[in-house]
Amino acid sequence: MSLHRIAVVTAFAASASAALAQTASTEQGREIPAYTLPVPEDVSPEMRRLVGAPPLPWDIHPKSIPEWKELVAKVAAPAKTLLPAMREKLGVTQEQTTIAGINVFVLTPQTIAPENQNRVFLHFHGGAYVLNPGEAGTREGVLMAGFGRAKVISVDYRTSSDAPYPAALDDCVAVYRELLKTTPPQRIAVFGTSTGGALTMALVLRARQEGLPPPAAIAPGSPWSDMTKTGDTFYSHNLVDNFQVSYDGYLKDSAYLYANGRDLKDPMLSPIYGDLKGFPPAILTSGTRDLFLSLTVRTHRKLRRAGVEADLQVFEGLSHAQYTINPDAPETREAFAEIARFFDRHMDR
Amino acid sequence: MSLHRIAVVTAFAASASAALAQTASTEQGREIPAYTLPVPEDVSPEMRRLVGAPPLPWDIHPKSIPEWKELVAKVAAPAKTLLPAMREKLGVTQEQTTIAGINVFVLTPQTIAPENQNRVFLHFHGGAYVLNPGEAGTREGVLMAGFGRAKVISVDYRTSSDAPYPAALDDCVAVYRELLKTTPPQRIAVFGTSTGGALTMALVLRARQEGLPPPAAIAPGSPWSDMTKTGDTFYSHNLVDNFQVSYDGYLKDSAYLYANGRDLKDPMLSPIYGDLKGFPPAILTSGTRDLFLSLTVRTHRKLRRAGVEADLQVFEGLSHAQYTINPDAPETREAFAEIARFFDRHMDR
Repeated sequence: MSLHRIAVVTAFAASASAALAQTASTEQGREIPAYTLPVPEDVSPEMRRLVGAPPLPWDIHPKSIPEWKELVAKVAAPAKTLLPAMREKLGVTQEQTTIAGINVFVLTPQTIAPENQNRVFLHFHGGAYVLNPGEAGTREGVLMAGFGRAKVISVDYRTSSDAPYPAALDDCVAVYRELLKTTPPQRIAVFGTSTGGALTMALVLRARQEGLPPPAAIAPGSPWSDMTKTGDTFYSHNLVDNFQVSYDGYLKDSAYLYANGRDLKDPMLSPIYGDLKGFPPAILTSGTRDLFLSLTVRTHRKLRRAGVEADLQVFEGLSHAQYTINPDAPETREAFAEIARFFDRHMDR
Repeated sequence: MSLHRIAVVTAFAASASAALAQTASTEQGREIPAYTLPVPEDVSPEMRRLVGAPPLPWDIHPKSIPEWKELVAKVAAPAKTLLPAMREKLGVTQEQTTIAGINVFVLTPQTIAPENQNRVFLHFHGGAYVLNPGEAGTREGVLMAGFGRAKVISVDYRTSSDAPYPAALDDCVAVYRELLKTTPPQRIAVFGTSTGGALTMALVLRARQEGLPPPAAIAPGSPWSDMTKTGDTFYSHNLVDNFQVSYDGYLKDSAYLYANGRDLKDPMLSPIYGDLKGFPPAILTSGTRDLFLSLTVRTHRKLRRAGVEADLQVFEGLSHAQYTINPDAPETREAFAEIARFFDRHMDR
């Protein structure tokens, strides 16, 4: 054994089993060198194109409400052709109406599963509180209606280029309050990804504040449960995630647009800072490249520490919200089927 | 809006909602630039030192059995002082004996929980099949005995500098077979991290082959369920994980040492390639920096797809197996308490 080898082994011995005895520390952060990230082998053929795609634009900083609105319009445009095709593929019909004066989309599958006949899955869409108003916000709702075989009501809440906090949450709460007049809470589940996941959790906090019963179950997917840049994967998955890509682009700007001067750690903005005791059973979804993986697992742990029944599913290779895009990928089917099964275990018929 | 801004927004629109329509692809892999990884805010004060520590030595390539044995001895040395202190802290006593001729350590907490009076938690240690023979392999068993308040039997299976595959698995199966003579399988749970997680899964496969009943529940923690370099986080967490650090060091060499010429994808070596239908309920544990995060979530998904009840817990900031080290950290307590609760739900009294 060379002298170098012996030195290495000794260092190993002094730190492996004895990791506790380590004295060196790099509290200021460690330098991670550049590397090449291949498309992982164990994603479905249908998902490879999304996983292998270059990062979406993220370093966008609208400087005014008109610039935000221009961004919103351009992002929404493709939905006009994509969504009708997705609905047709999944056999989902869409009806636009209002509940409590709020615009909603009712998404109904060809066949509602027997267990879901009297249930409603309430959907809050993602998009950093500013993107995806109107039909553009229904994509995840369509997937859930199709794969979960349940009636979905997708709330077209006011977005923050029109009205900042608390408009979006107020609209979600108003629809929930109205629903409760005809549907017992044990037959209502609430779900949404990213901002939709944060709104799902904030709804539970607001329901408690306002004396409303909580829904039977919730599915905050990769929830934006903390608007501050707190979380390991904001660093380790920066530019690794090809969908949300980075905290430091339009995402961060949209946090301040929605908060409108409030503390980003207000539990109604960042529900991870709220009291999660008494939350309904929750299932959380993420991916190994998700910029919000840390948010997801921190939320999961905080729910479990509060004694809440909470499940976690993480998909190989997927970036933020990437399980909500491709109706042909088995990962998408699986994610929503798992959520529907979880809901079924916790809802009344 | 500047021309640049418009171009960016248009690119965004063409690819965000329309992500499916993306044609560009980087199947050959994407270049991720170098970055600084800070210690995450949301880890416990007790865990910060481990999380903030520099990577352990990993680029070690023993060239002969004596060189492997030298490494094994040096890694094991600190255990001699650390383990007695850990046992004392957790009120766990240790008795060394043999079962079916195999050396085992029986770890007994001061108080066995009422529900665990007639149960045994069977432990297979980690260490790439080559490290941690003898007492050095008991660390995780001590933590489980202390935090799970149950009797743990930790198997000192033959390691691969003495005997390659199938020696380790044979020893684990022999102890399990012997245990079944006095304890019904509904009162046996099996757990282990890394190699211990792979052995836990391989035991179930071998039990089926040999006509033995499966245990009531299993906890493969961050399991080395695939010995090939298959998994997103072998790349994205390379050098991010400060405990296992990289596939390409002694870890890979130890795979070939154990396999001894066999195909690394043999299900008895890489149980993720086995038939997981009919597996007992399983709880899996990982961390956001775990080199084996992909192995953990791929295993979790494969279990779920096989219809197995399977839970997943992922800890913020933790590297491979890092929840099995520090008895003072709340993350450690939490991980083992969750596993014990999961076992309790699925075992007979």
